[in-house]
Amino acid sequence: MNILRLCNFAALLVMGTFAAHGLAGEPHRKALAANDASKSIRTVLDAQIVAWNRGDIEGFMAGYWNSPDFIYVANKQVTRGWQAMLDRYHQAFRAADGSALPMGTLELLETQITPLSADSALVWGTYSVVNPDGKRRGGLYTLVMRKFPEGWRTVYDRTSSEPLQN
Amino acid sequence: MNILRLCNFAALLVMGTFAAHGLAGEPHRKALAANDASKSIRTVLDAQIVAWNRGDIEGFMAGYWNSPDFIYVANKQVTRGWQAMLDRYHQAFRAADGSALPMGTLELLETQITPLSADSALVWGTYSVVNPDGKRRGGLYTLVMRKFPEGWRTVYDRTSSEPLQN
Repeated sequence: MNILRLCNFAALLVMGTFAAHGLAGEPHRKALAANDASKSIRTVLDAQIVAWNRGDIEGFMAGYWNSPDFIYVANKQVTRGWQAMLDRYHQAFRAADGSALPMGTLELLETQITPLSADSALVWGTYSVVNPDGKRRGGLYTLVMRKFPEGWRTVYDRTSSEPLQN
Repeated sequence: MNILRLCNFAALLVMGTFAAHGLAGEPHRKALAANDASKSIRTVLDAQIVAWNRGDIEGFMAGYWNSPDFIYVANKQVTRGWQAMLDRYHQAFRAADGSALPMGTLELLETQITPLSADSALVWGTYSVVNPDGKRRGGLYTLVMRKFPEGWRTVYDRTSSEPLQN
């Protein structure tokens, strides 16, 4: 009898939990979905940071939409297309003999993620890069990210860069 | 008989037109919706420009999301909230006696509208303002706009401003 009562209690507990979730309804589901999106986006950004900090240009570029319509705005310079952006990084961080040059240590200082729909989001904040010589640069970044079958990717990146005080 | 044949032909023509629209299906509907969104967005931006150019701060601000979560980033300065932004414009363009100061002539030089979902879009491009003394300033603007019951509004505006050559 005691075991039966315990089972009944456990069943009621489980049913109660489901009922509570059901009552919360649409806003609750939306909040959960937004939270999932934010986590997935954060994972993509974190992977880009890890890639940057090991000098892995291709790994960093994996967070960007691989399309001719990808847009990168650095201060006033507009780069159109994923391939053009990859070429730019290769020019900046590859020596004449093809060997990798150090890219410094990238850090996001603030990150604000605002979901716009189930498959689009605004992400913005501040970042810094500490160069191998110890000098810091950084500024504001603004990303528009979209969810593709392969995951969340940045389709538009506007990032300003200037020297920062150490 | 001739009239009946004509009626039949007209009926077939109408049915054919509907069928063609049906066959075009989802991509066609999405393209039409994106086109409608772009037109509505352009109308909101045009109204802001007209308001700016007659020194109507409230009219210009009507294109922005009236919320404490509205964000305006001017170069490096982040303003949070619609009211704070309105206050900033009043400070900049109102004389000590409350009279309006000239705000110059605003013009969008390039405008790229990318719908992100049925009710969100990325808008970016370049602009210029010719001041009453003839000096020009301008730069890049990046807007994230969302569709509310009252219409499309900018929820995030990042605009850089610097002196331009005449």
